[in-house]
Amino acid sequence: MIVRGLPRVGGVWRRGFSSSATRREIIDIESLPDRIVPRYPESQTSDLLSLQWPSPPRNILIIKKDRAPHVTESLIEYAKHIHSNYDNVSLIFEPKVAAQMHKQFSFPVYTTSSAGALPRKVDMTTTLGGDGTILRAASLFSTTLHVPPVLSFSMGTLGFLGEWKFAEYKRAFREVYMSGAGAGSPLFQDQKHPHVKTMVDETGDIVTGWSSIRGKSMGPTRSSKVLLRNRLKVGVFDAEGHRVIGDNTAESAAGDVHAMNEVVIHRGKEAHLAIIEVFVGGRFLTEAVADGMIIATPTGSTAYSLSAGGNIVHPLVSSLLVTPICPRSLSFRTLVLPANTPITLRLSEKNRGRELEVSIDGRRRSHGISVGMEIRVNGEDIVKGSEWIGGVPCVMRGTISGREDDDGWVGGLNGLLKFNYPFGGDE
Amino acid sequence: MIVRGLPRVGGVWRRGFSSSATRREIIDIESLPDRIVPRYPESQTSDLLSLQWPSPPRNILIIKKDRAPHVTESLIEYAKHIHSNYDNVSLIFEPKVAAQMHKQFSFPVYTTSSAGALPRKVDMTTTLGGDGTILRAASLFSTTLHVPPVLSFSMGTLGFLGEWKFAEYKRAFREVYMSGAGAGSPLFQDQKHPHVKTMVDETGDIVTGWSSIRGKSMGPTRSSKVLLRNRLKVGVFDAEGHRVIGDNTAESAAGDVHAMNEVVIHRGKEAHLAIIEVFVGGRFLTEAVADGMIIATPTGSTAYSLSAGGNIVHPLVSSLLVTPICPRSLSFRTLVLPANTPITLRLSEKNRGRELEVSIDGRRRSHGISVGMEIRVNGEDIVKGSEWIGGVPCVMRGTISGREDDDGWVGGLNGLLKFNYPFGGDE
Amino acid sequence: MIVRGLPRVGGVWRRGFSSSATRREIIDIESLPDRIVPRYPESQTSDLLSLQWPSPPRNILIIKKDRAPHVTESLIEYAKHIHSNYDNVSLIFEPKVAAQMHKQFSFPVYTTSSAGALPRKVDMTTTLGGDGTILRAASLFSTTLHVPPVLSFSMGTLGFLGEWKFAEYKRAFREVYMSGAGAGSPLFQDQKHPHVKTMVDETGDIVTGWSSIRGKSMGPTRSSKVLLRNRLKVGVFDAEGHRVIGDNTAESAAGDVHAMNEVVIHRGKEAHLAIIEVFVGGRFLTEAVADGMIIATPTGSTAYSLSAGGNIVHPLVSSLLVTPICPRSLSFRTLVLPANTPITLRLSEKNRGRELEVSIDGRRRSHGISVGMEIRVNGEDIVKGSEWIGGVPCVMRGTISGREDDDGWVGGLNGLLKFNYPFGGDE
Amino acid sequence: MIVRGLPRVGGVWRRGFSSSATRREIIDIESLPDRIVPRYPESQTSDLLSLQWPSPPRNILIIKKDRAPHVTESLIEYAKHIHSNYDNVSLIFEPKVAAQMHKQFSFPVYTTSSAGALPRKVDMTTTLGGDGTILRAASLFSTTLHVPPVLSFSMGTLGFLGEWKFAEYKRAFREVYMSGAGAGSPLFQDQKHPHVKTMVDETGDIVTGWSSIRGKSMGPTRSSKVLLRNRLKVGVFDAEGHRVIGDNTAESAAGDVHAMNEVVIHRGKEAHLAIIEVFVGGRFLTEAVADGMIIATPTGSTAYSLSAGGNIVHPLVSSLLVTPICPRSLSFRTLVLPANTPITLRLSEKNRGRELEVSIDGRRRSHGISVGMEIRVNGEDIVKGSEWIGGVPCVMRGTISGREDDDGWVGGLNGLLKFNYPFGGDE
Ligand SMILES: NC(=O)C1=CN([C@@H]2O[C@H](COP(=O)(O)OP(=O)(O)OC[C@H]3O[C@@H](n4cnc5c(N)ncnc54)[C@H](O)[C@@H]3O)[C@@H](O)[C@H]2O)C=CC1
Ligand SMILES: NC(=O)C1=CN([C@@H]2O[C@H](COP(=O)(O)OP(=O)(O)OC[C@H]3O[C@@H](n4cnc5c(N)ncnc54)[C@H](O)[C@@H]3O)[C@@H](O)[C@H]2O)C=CC1
Ligand SMILES: NC(=O)C1=CN([C@@H]2O[C@H](COP(=O)(O)OP(=O)(O)OC[C@H]3O[C@@H](n4cnc5c(N)ncnc54)[C@H](O)[C@@H]3O)[C@@H](O)[C@H]2O)C=CC1
Ligand SMILES: NC(=O)C1=CN([C@@H]2O[C@H](COP(=O)(O)OP(=O)(O)OC[C@H]3O[C@@H](n4cnc5c(N)ncnc54)[C@H](O)[C@@H]3O)[C@@H](O)[C@H]2O)C=CC1
Repeated sequence: MIVRGLPRVGGVWRRGFSSSATRREIIDIESLPDRIVPRYPESQTSDLLSLQWPSPPRNILIIKKDRAPHVTESLIEYAKHIHSNYDNVSLIFEPKVAAQMHKQFSFPVYTTSSAGALPRKVDMTTTLGGDGTILRAASLFSTTLHVPPVLSFSMGTLGFLGEWKFAEYKRAFREVYMSGAGAGSPLFQDQKHPHVKTMVDETGDIVTGWSSIRGKSMGPTRSSKVLLRNRLKVGVFDAEGHRVIGDNTAESAAGDVHAMNEVVIHRGKEAHLAIIEVFVGGRFLTEAVADGMIIATPTGSTAYSLSAGGNIVHPLVSSLLVTPICPRSLSFRTLVLPANTPITLRLSEKNRGRELEVSIDGRRRSHGISVGMEIRVNGEDIVKGSEWIGGVPCVMRGTISGREDDDGWVGGLNGLLKFNYPFGGDE
Repeated sequence: MIVRGLPRVGGVWRRGFSSSATRREIIDIESLPDRIVPRYPESQTSDLLSLQWPSPPRNILIIKKDRAPHVTESLIEYAKHIHSNYDNVSLIFEPKVAAQMHKQFSFPVYTTSSAGALPRKVDMTTTLGGDGTILRAASLFSTTLHVPPVLSFSMGTLGFLGEWKFAEYKRAFREVYMSGAGAGSPLFQDQKHPHVKTMVDETGDIVTGWSSIRGKSMGPTRSSKVLLRNRLKVGVFDAEGHRVIGDNTAESAAGDVHAMNEVVIHRGKEAHLAIIEVFVGGRFLTEAVADGMIIATPTGSTAYSLSAGGNIVHPLVSSLLVTPICPRSLSFRTLVLPANTPITLRLSEKNRGRELEVSIDGRRRSHGISVGMEIRVNGEDIVKGSEWIGGVPCVMRGTISGREDDDGWVGGLNGLLKFNYPFGGDE
Repeated sequence: MIVRGLPRVGGVWRRGFSSSATRREIIDIESLPDRIVPRYPESQTSDLLSLQWPSPPRNILIIKKDRAPHVTESLIEYAKHIHSNYDNVSLIFEPKVAAQMHKQFSFPVYTTSSAGALPRKVDMTTTLGGDGTILRAASLFSTTLHVPPVLSFSMGTLGFLGEWKFAEYKRAFREVYMSGAGAGSPLFQDQKHPHVKTMVDETGDIVTGWSSIRGKSMGPTRSSKVLLRNRLKVGVFDAEGHRVIGDNTAESAAGDVHAMNEVVIHRGKEAHLAIIEVFVGGRFLTEAVADGMIIATPTGSTAYSLSAGGNIVHPLVSSLLVTPICPRSLSFRTLVLPANTPITLRLSEKNRGRELEVSIDGRRRSHGISVGMEIRVNGEDIVKGSEWIGGVPCVMRGTISGREDDDGWVGGLNGLLKFNYPFGGDE
Repeated sequence: MIVRGLPRVGGVWRRGFSSSATRREIIDIESLPDRIVPRYPESQTSDLLSLQWPSPPRNILIIKKDRAPHVTESLIEYAKHIHSNYDNVSLIFEPKVAAQMHKQFSFPVYTTSSAGALPRKVDMTTTLGGDGTILRAASLFSTTLHVPPVLSFSMGTLGFLGEWKFAEYKRAFREVYMSGAGAGSPLFQDQKHPHVKTMVDETGDIVTGWSSIRGKSMGPTRSSKVLLRNRLKVGVFDAEGHRVIGDNTAESAAGDVHAMNEVVIHRGKEAHLAIIEVFVGGRFLTEAVADGMIIATPTGSTAYSLSAGGNIVHPLVSSLLVTPICPRSLSFRTLVLPANTPITLRLSEKNRGRELEVSIDGRRRSHGISVGMEIRVNGEDIVKGSEWIGGVPCVMRGTISGREDDDGWVGGLNGLLKFNYPFGGDE
């Protein structure tokens, strides 16, 4: 099926697209096979999970940094490499990117005008950009419980979430693609997975799934390591307790939205302080008089919450942070609560008609909240292991080094956040 | 001269006014005598200054809290008291307030459609409201170097700047009115001060200055104590270094604006972090990546700067504070600089077309600043003593208590800011 | 067996004791039956655990605040009440207290000269004092994995850990004593528990376990709620990696010591800054130049760590905090790590011969650590549920209120820590 | 006069000394002419003062870092250079150093067994070491109001107070030596200054002050710039209000001691929190429950106070900082008070017999303070200009660069304190 001029506007999937010549077409993702959901067994040697594909991934979503022309070059190089070496893989782009790029390729690319279709089709996401690009990629799955694994490449300046340097893309993609495909693994037998199509490779040989990839299998113990980043769930409710509908976005209609970093309410362009009631576990905790409030995940503890004075929480500590933004108080300190604590932020009647802004992972919602309205937050329920559910599975960069328990976090504190940077001259 | 339907719109002095019957008229302040500038000799027993009128004050500006109906009652009571007891005193209101209130009075009230006239006419300002009301009162004199003394009454909740409880208004006004008028003081002899015009009061008696006031003189040593609150000067300049004109407010046209608390630049409704270059004493200090930046006076150290994590500076420490708002850094701490240090905030080119909001003492300027523009800040030059210039002279509340050196600051830390509030149960 | 003049000195159990008349004797706890280990099933309605005795507790350890004469009165009242109403209960005291108090009682009291015997004998601990008393009680079990449940009464000022007011002691003791003894519970049948000895009560009736207690059973759903406070394990190792022996305390010889609040290393009386290498999960994190370092449990996050600038972590967040004390750095912020992260503090060679102090839960160890030595810290492994192991089970005070999920934490933040205490006058 | 085996022990001037051969003798400083007190006129182009010698300095005190063998080499080189090029200059060392070093020199060195003699004799101090060495040098003048100017060379790692790199010593010394000696300056004519004694140099030539120095005069406008670092005055008083005598140090006997960084009281090796009453300007401010309290100068704001969470105050802001060390409070923030505010720290009766340590500029006083005792602190009164008094005059390093108003402070924030160190990779 070839899509022409898709009507939908607004949001990420803003731009329609048209297609042209045979090989340079843009195809709707509905024609792709349904996604393959990997398993995430706990690893013996590490606190991270292993990534185990039941069969090789096929539908790869590629998200690139916005308004960054220099990333486009890399995107082309990356896409061509995957197409040449992994024949049964299809590449999915955001509509705007698909429209811009498809002429560069001798093969069809995929997209969709309906963001809701992505969770059904995407096996894996790769991002080319910074932390903001990863957050945007995650936001495409903000209403689903099964986020496909994310392989992120940092372009230019390093980010705190981005794991791989772009120069490593060949090895990185291969590792993730092969992850969990042990020689002895029954999953390795493609005949048991008839949906893996037989193909003819460049040399004319018949290739079936992983066996088509040159080089030794990584073996089941050499699987990619995955850090499952806990998200938080956000619901917005009006003064009568009804979930607010009509945000003109798919998310709120379907229920809670998931955030990877945080949800923020902020006075925005209001000149005056906001008054926010905070409830924890159903109990009134305090009335914050402040510029705003942040409820963050441990992942988000190094983002806005840090700037607002919050402390640093390791992503594997199952918790939520409550951090005020410029509170009119000497005695408000960041709280770290169990992830399953319900937290409610309520706009006090004392605000007298002012509206506050709501942002999720740095993106402002089209509507703010007004007096009496509530933001209800909860940590996402995570079930780990083979039946895992929830979280954003981020592919870590440590497989080869042998330091298998290295989640890169300590390195990030030092290398990126300049944690406890020593005093003294650099002589 | 009776003013009718003044044309000017915008700013504080937004609303025109019309007048009606004989005694209930609204008169333009141009018909009032020019202001009397008090002296502020240094006091022997205190770090505060003494207030010394060369002759009794006559033109009293009264500013009340906005949108607070319960304050109106108090305003009427206060105005009537002054009129009844201090015959040669004229009361000045903001145009909107004058229009609303003049029917309540059996005497004329004064106003002006031109905010610029106030510095020439006002002998003293009294405020009824909170800290915001004092800031608004001060902003009426933000382009002059000689701010009239401010006598502030807190209505309802105590503020940090407000000194007197409204219940004390009779004593308070009398003290300030009489301040420096010792029996032995040559100034007390009105004949020696021909510029104190002889007037005929309602009962037909001739009244000459202080002698008309019943009760004993306070004596020269019993003068009101004044805390001279240092302001800072703010100029906004475009990328070419020209002072920005056309803000549609009188202030910027006339040169620097003075702030009592602080100048703030903030990302406002922009979702992304702002990048601000900070120069101190002409040298590049740092590039702040943050929600915003605050340059505050010591007075402002307990306002926004405190919420942003800044420390507390006594108003008599001649200095400026540099406090970032949610900086993306672990190592930005509030700086306290000499008041005469020039500080420049420059919007870095890296902000890519974003505009930041500028607020002075909590009021947003109609125009923000864009890339390349600069905010230049400097402490106001203060010359103390009899030839004093600069600062906002705030009448303190300590004359009677005998603790003459008490500037009320320690009490405010404990009573209002709950400084070092003790842990433990309230049993 | 009646103990006379026990020889052991040092530590808490410093003082020997002698006994005198028949009923006022001090008996060694070895003559008591072995302890009864309760179960802690997870509760449906709460994040807290339920306390479920297989049979009624018999051996109650009572710890009172040191050097606080007014607590002695309460101790006598409390002990007499238990003796009168729970006949098969034996009361255990610290040697010094036993020696001082036993004359006051018409019944024998128990003690031991060997602190190591307590974990084998004590069914439950009750404390009369403040947080320090609870910490001291916990320290008696610092080398065992099965700490008996702690029922704590605050005397005088409220503490953050103390749960019950002394005025509630009758109800509190009864609730804990009966906890989990449902009418329908098979455990309620004393005959099935032959180790519950049949006794004759004061009125001559035969009493068998719970049935002797007047009043209705609480039922299995009305069991006491228990907050399992995670501890951390501390080992001290010399430069060669050998565990340091010869601390002259039982603890270190037997392996790791457990802390309820924190382990601290501090320069103590050394005038110069200490240099401490911090390793996290086996990786070098940073070199802290500071007065000291704190590794704290979530419980300890409101103790010393808070004073040092750390944030507040709910006791149910399974984690460890790393908080520096006065670090010579602008960029050291509290870290919250997963409880199972091994953390090592190593005294750098750069300290040139200085010795640092080591404190556990506020008590200084007799020996400090010197250059090259290491403190190795780990969260205690907790297995919850009926097979629970680890943690300090603290009996909460929420059973009656109906707010079963209330762990008192929010109340403590507000009532004790004055969290986000509002600005403004108290008019 | 040649001194032999001086008896005095204790303090810095601990070690006596003996002398031997003709030219390698150690001479008592009493034989040196009395000191020359420079003037410090305010500079036009800078906030710093100018250094103006009425005649060339002659008695130079050299202080070197303790226990740092590699500094000894540099000391020898430095001393020989001065002796060879500035013939009428005498070098003074601490007794221990004089004893160790005099054999290395072909000229006599000076010392004294009485620290009290230094303020009468020393024209200028130069330090070779780090910040600690400068603090130690300043402490030799802690009881005098006229501290000689300090020229400091950092050895090895840069410090925040140390100004010059040792490699620059020739230029640095010459600049300071010549400072203010303009060709046209009347001061340059030695005959007008009869107290500048005519001397015969090693080659037999008559040398008269500056004229003996090769090279061009710097001119009166090229004088060295001096930052006058405000000190604070500390007095210790017992519960009856008597100044505590008998510290066995000269300082306390003579009245207040001056500190350059801060005075600290700390629980030291006491395990329990200290309770300290803080009075500001005679009024009770608060009761601090803490590890300790710091009262710091602006110079000290980047020392211990910074580690304890305090903010950074420019040395030219005339003020004192009050910073608690690990306070048991959420709401204690650093206070910056006017330098002339009297501050009292009183050990509360609640401390029950505990003794706290007192340190001045990092050196612990032999006696601590006990319950009821007070530390009274006040900023030093500074009179600037030609009649200056007070402060530690530190020679800055900026003369050549042309950036005359550069006090090096901004550079120190960035280069040494890593102020607002940017996030991100170092790629
Ligand atoms: N004052 C502040 O610190 C503010 C921070 N933000 C953060 O920005 C995020 C959105 O990112 P962008 O769209 O790139 O906005 P952006 O262009 O404003 O940049 C945000 C910065 O935060 C970094 N960042 C994002 N997530 C992070 C994480 N989990 N740990 C460490 N660093 C992280 C990014 O690398 C980037 O440097 C939001 O989720 C929020 O956390 C948003 C507004 C203000
Ligand atoms: N997050 C924050 O803390 C924010 C604070 N502000 C402050 O509000 C000021 C304007 O005041 P309003 O118009 O009343 O705005 P507002 O209605 O937002 O209230 C500001 C609060 O700050 C208090 N305040 C003002 N000046 C103070 C001072 N010098 N010391 C101690 N407390 C002070 C007022 O009493 C009031 O409680 C601004 O100058 C700015 O300092 C403004 C925006 C945000
Ligand atoms: N600067 C500080 O804040 C210091 C704090 N401590 C703390 O004191 C504890 C020992 O307690 P004490 O023997 O009573 O010493 P203490 O007599 O010095 O008092 C310590 C204070 O901390 C409180 N406290 C103890 N544990 C707490 C917790 N988990 N949460 C909240 N407050 C708590 C106590 O109620 C008491 O007010 C240590 O474990 C350490 O955490 C010890 C030294 C210094
Ligand atoms: N936790 C902390 O930060 C502590 C700091 N100190 C400080 O050390 C000073 C004594 O210095 P040392 O004898 O060398 O002791 P030290 O060997 O303990 O080193 C103190 C450190 O502070 C630096 N320092 C000293 N004065 C400074 C200033 N005014 N600005 C910036 N950095 C400064 C020194 O360069 C050195 O790195 C005391 O006056 C006190 O301020 C003393 C004890 C603890």
